Amino acid sequence: MTDAATPTILQTRAAASAARRAGKQLASLDAQARTALLNELAAALEDPERTAAILAANAQDMAAAKQAQAAGELSPALVARLGLDSTKLAALADGLRTLAAMPELLGAVCLRRELDDELVLERVSCPLGVLGIVFEARPDAVPQITGLALKSGNAVLLKGGSEARGTNRALVELIHAVLRERGVDPACVGHLEDRAAFAALLDCHEDVDLIIARGSGPFVQRVMDSTKIPVLGHAEGLCHLYVHADAEPERAAAIAVDAKASYPAACNAIETLLWHAEASAAALASLHALATAGVELRGDPASCELASAAGLALTPATEADWAAEYSDMILAIRQVPSLTDALVHIERFGSRHTEAIVCTDLAIGERFIAEVDAACVFINASTRFADGYRFGLGAEVGISTGKLHARGPVGVEGLLTYRWLLRGRGQIASEYGPGKRPFTHRDLPG
Amino acid sequence: MTDAATPTILQTRAAASAARRAGKQLASLDAQARTALLNELAAALEDPERTAAILAANAQDMAAAKQAQAAGELSPALVARLGLDSTKLAALADGLRTLAAMPELLGAVCLRRELDDELVLERVSCPLGVLGIVFEARPDAVPQITGLALKSGNAVLLKGGSEARGTNRALVELIHAVLRERGVDPACVGHLEDRAAFAALLDCHEDVDLIIARGSGPFVQRVMDSTKIPVLGHAEGLCHLYVHADAEPERAAAIAVDAKASYPAACNAIETLLWHAEASAAALASLHALATAGVELRGDPASCELASAAGLALTPATEADWAAEYSDMILAIRQVPSLTDALVHIERFGSRHTEAIVCTDLAIGERFIAEVDAACVFINASTRFADGYRFGLGAEVGISTGKLHARGPVGVEGLLTYRWLLRGRGQIASEYGPGKRPFTHRDLPG
Repeated sequence: MTDAATPTILQTRAAASAARRAGKQLASLDAQARTALLNELAAALEDPERTAAILAANAQDMAAAKQAQAAGELSPALVARLGLDSTKLAALADGLRTLAAMPELLGAVCLRRELDDELVLERVSCPLGVLGIVFEARPDAVPQITGLALKSGNAVLLKGGSEARGTNRALVELIHAVLRERGVDPACVGHLEDRAAFAALLDCHEDVDLIIARGSGPFVQRVMDSTKIPVLGHAEGLCHLYVHADAEPERAAAIAVDAKASYPAACNAIETLLWHAEASAAALASLHALATAGVELRGDPASCELASAAGLALTPATEADWAAEYSDMILAIRQVPSLTDALVHIERFGSRHTEAIVCTDLAIGERFIAEVDAACVFINASTRFADGYRFGLGAEVGISTGKLHARGPVGVEGLLTYRWLLRGRGQIASEYGPGKRPFTHRDLPG
Repeated sequence: MTDAATPTILQTRAAASAARRAGKQLASLDAQARTALLNELAAALEDPERTAAILAANAQDMAAAKQAQAAGELSPALVARLGLDSTKLAALADGLRTLAAMPELLGAVCLRRELDDELVLERVSCPLGVLGIVFEARPDAVPQITGLALKSGNAVLLKGGSEARGTNRALVELIHAVLRERGVDPACVGHLEDRAAFAALLDCHEDVDLIIARGSGPFVQRVMDSTKIPVLGHAEGLCHLYVHADAEPERAAAIAVDAKASYPAACNAIETLLWHAEASAAALASLHALATAGVELRGDPASCELASAAGLALTPATEADWAAEYSDMILAIRQVPSLTDALVHIERFGSRHTEAIVCTDLAIGERFIAEVDAACVFINASTRFADGYRFGLGAEVGISTGKLHARGPVGVEGLLTYRWLLRGRGQIASEYGPGKRPFTHRDLPG
C-alpha cells in the first residue's frame, strides 16, 4: 500500500491542490471583500433556516456520543464540548464580527526604505498559503479557524474530531454556500473527514505551507514526527504557578483555583504549584481552596506535612509527578527554598508554555519575568489568560511553544509571512558598495 | 558507533550546553554592554598586533588552498574568497560598527495592551537562544555572524569551511579574548572545527534553537533532512529575470549582466532569462551583453533563432536547463508569448528566492509583484540586491526561502523571537467572558 495511491490519498492531494488555487483567489480579494465574507458568515450562523441542518447534524453526533459515553468510550467532558445550540452559534457569529472589525494586517507595509534615489524597498505581509489544521472534538473550531483563515487570506484544510464529523460537515457546507454566493471558490475551505485523509495531507508538502496541530501531547508529537511540512503547536502544556514568600494568601488561592480547576484539560492550566518555604500561609490557603474545588493534591514531604498539620491529607508525590501533564483535576505541590530553586524547577520541568508567579514585591516578579524562558510569563495573573481571545487577538488557531515564527497564542498575525518588494529604474548591484556608490538606507513613512 | 558517544560528540554536546549557559549571560547584558562588545571587536580587527595571528593563519590556509587549486581540488573562485588582508579586516570592522550603531531590537516592546484595569499585556522581543551556523569557505563570515549574534543576544556555534579552518580558529580566538576582557563567557561564540562536530550538533536539539545552513543546495537539503532542529536557509536559488515587451534594451542588458555575471555563484544570481516575444530588441541587447561578459547561453528554439540571425551562436537548451541552478557563467534563455506564460514558468521552476521583471509600464510590474510568490520580487532592479547588507539590515546570516519566521535576507530581527508578559494584581480568567466582566483590550503606547 506504500506506493499505491489510495482513493483517499488522491482525493486529499486534489483537495490540497484545489486549496492552493482557491487560496490565491482569496488572497487577491481586497480587505473589504474578505470583511464582507466574515460578516455574511456571521449572519448565516444566526439564520435559523440556514443553521437547521447544522443543529440536526449536531443532535445526531450528540446522540452517538452519549451512547459512546454510556459505553465508557467517551468522557463526559468531551461530550459536553460537542454540543451546539443557537446561543453558541450566536457567540461564534459575534466572534466573526469582532474579527471582521479588527485592523487589516494582510498587505500591510511593515518597512519602507529608500536604498537609493528611485530604488525603494518594501516589506509587505502576505498569507502563508495553505494551512492544514487538525483539532479535537469541539465543532466551534470550524467557524473560528475559518474566520482566521479568511481574515488572513489563507486557504485551510480542516480535520476535526470524528465525534463531530456530521456537525463539522454541515458547518463546512454552510461556509461553502456563503463563499459561493460571493463568487469565491469554496475549495479555499476544505474538509478532511477522517484520519487517513489527514495522514495523506501530511505528505502534501508542495501544496501545504503549515500544519497546525491541536490535541494531546503524544498526538502533536506524532504529527511533528510524520511530516516534512512545518508544524505549529505544542506537544506539552506543563505550566507552573510559583507562590513567593510575600504572596497574599487570598490572591494565591484565587489564582491557583482558577489556573487549575476552571478548565483542567486546557493546555494553559497549571500542573504544579511551587511554594516558597516562607509562604506557608499562602500555600495552605491555596491547598484548602484547591481541595474544596475538588482537586486531588499530590505533595512533596514538606507540603504533605504542612497540609496534614492543618487536617488536610495529601497524596505523596513522586519524581514522576513533577513531569506529569495531568490535564485533569490533579495538581502536584512542591515546597522550594527560594525563588532560584523555583526557577531551576521550572527550567527543568516546564514546557515553555506559560509560567506565573504570585508575589507582592514587584521586583521579585520582574526577576521571574527576566529569567523564565517561556512563551507566556505572568505576574499576579492566572495562567488561563494565555489565550488568543483573552489577549485580544480576535481568536487563536492554537498556541505555539516553538520559538520560530509565532510564539504563544497564534492569531491572524501568525498566519502571515512577508515578501520583500524592490522598485527601481534599472539599478544594478555592482554599482554600489565600499568605494562605489553608497546606499542611502533612509526609512520612509509607510 | 551509533550508540557510543565519541569524544567529538561529547565535546560538541558540552560546547552546546556551555553556549546555552553563556547565551543567557549575553542576553542579560544591556544594549550598551553589547554595543561596547561590538565596537571593541571592531577595534581589535584593526589592531595590527591583535590581527597578526589571523593574517599568519590565513597565509597558511591560502598556501594550502593554492596547492589544492594546482591539484585541481579547489576552484580559483573559492581560493580567491579565502584571502584576508588588513583592508578586508577594516571593512569587517566597519560592518561591526554599523551594526553597533543600529537601533536596538532586543527587548523591544512590540505590543502593549491593557486587558483590564491593572492587567497589562506586553509582547517583548528576546533572543532565540543558541544558533548553529554552517557556512562555506569565506572567513569574513566569522566576525559578521558573531556581530549579528552579539547584537541579537544569541549564543552561536560556528562551523566554517575546512579550507579556512586556521583562519577561523584565529578569528574566534580574537573574539574570545575581547569577550573575556569584558567579563563575558567566551562559550557564547563556539567554534566547531570539523564536519563530525557539526553532525553531532545536529543531534543537540535541547541546546540548539536554530540551525542556519549556507552552502550548496544538496548540502542544505542534507542538513534539513538530518536534524529535528529547525533549519533556516535555502536549498535552491533558482532566480529569473523576465524581460517584458516594453523593456528598454539598455536597461534589460545592464540588469541581465549584473544579475548573472557579477557573481554567478551567488544564490541571488539569475539562472534563466525569460523574454516576451515582442521584446526581441531588448532580448538581443541582453544576449550580446551577456556573451561579451563571457556567459555561456543556452536557448530555446526561438532564442537560438533570434541570436543566430544576429550572428550569435547559442547552445540549444533542453527541458533540464529550466530546472538547473548552474551557479556558474551559464544562463538559460527562453521566449514566452506573454507575461502570464512567464508567471507560469516562474511558478513551475522558481525556488521562491528572488524574481525580477524589466518593464516600462509600471502597471505590468505591479501585476508581476502581485502574482509572483517569492521571498523577494523586484521591478527594474537586479536580483543581486537581495542581500542583507544592500537591504540595510546591517548584515545577514543567510537568506531564507521558507515562509515561516524569517523570509528573504535574515538580519538581527530574524534572530529574535518574543515572549508575552502579563502583569496583574491577582486577576483570574474565569471572571471574564461573555456575560461576565468584559476585557478593555486597549492598546497602550509602547
